[in-house]
Amino acid sequence: MRVVPRAGILDPQGNAVAGALGSLGFDGISEVHVGRLITLRLLAASEADARERAEAMCRRLLANPVTEDFEIRVAS
Amino acid sequence: MRVVPRAGILDPQGNAVAGALGSLGFDGISEVHVGRLITLRLLAASEADARERAEAMCRRLLANPVTEDFEIRVAS
Repeated sequence: MRVVPRAGILDPQGNAVAGALGSLGFDGISEVHVGRLITLRLLAASEADARERAEAMCRRLLANPVTEDFEIRVAS
Repeated sequence: MRVVPRAGILDPQGNAVAGALGSLGFDGISEVHVGRLITLRLLAASEADARERAEAMCRRLLANPVTEDFEIRVAS
């Protein structure tokens, strides 16, 4: 699952990384965003079942519903 | 850039997520890993130049060279 700051919402971690990269001399950089990448193995009856449970995990624990969006990829 | 815990190294954040998912009643879950996903816009002369600079950013700031691996994807 990818959990990323919702577009248009302040991303303090992204801003901190942008500042730090600038201090190190990296230039020409903009739109820095920092999200989380969560991978796990899930025993599921089907791909649809896996996706549904992963969505529930994001809604209930992994993503902040106010500030973040999430995206799920299922591999079998 | 994706920055992920190196395989075989303890991943306390992954373990914490696994525990929390278990407490919420999610079962059949294993191998939970938590990494970071950093996206940015970079003015570069070429794709090779962009990749080289992104690698330097990971080595110098974004990834912990002792515990993490990184992977770069360039889109134009």
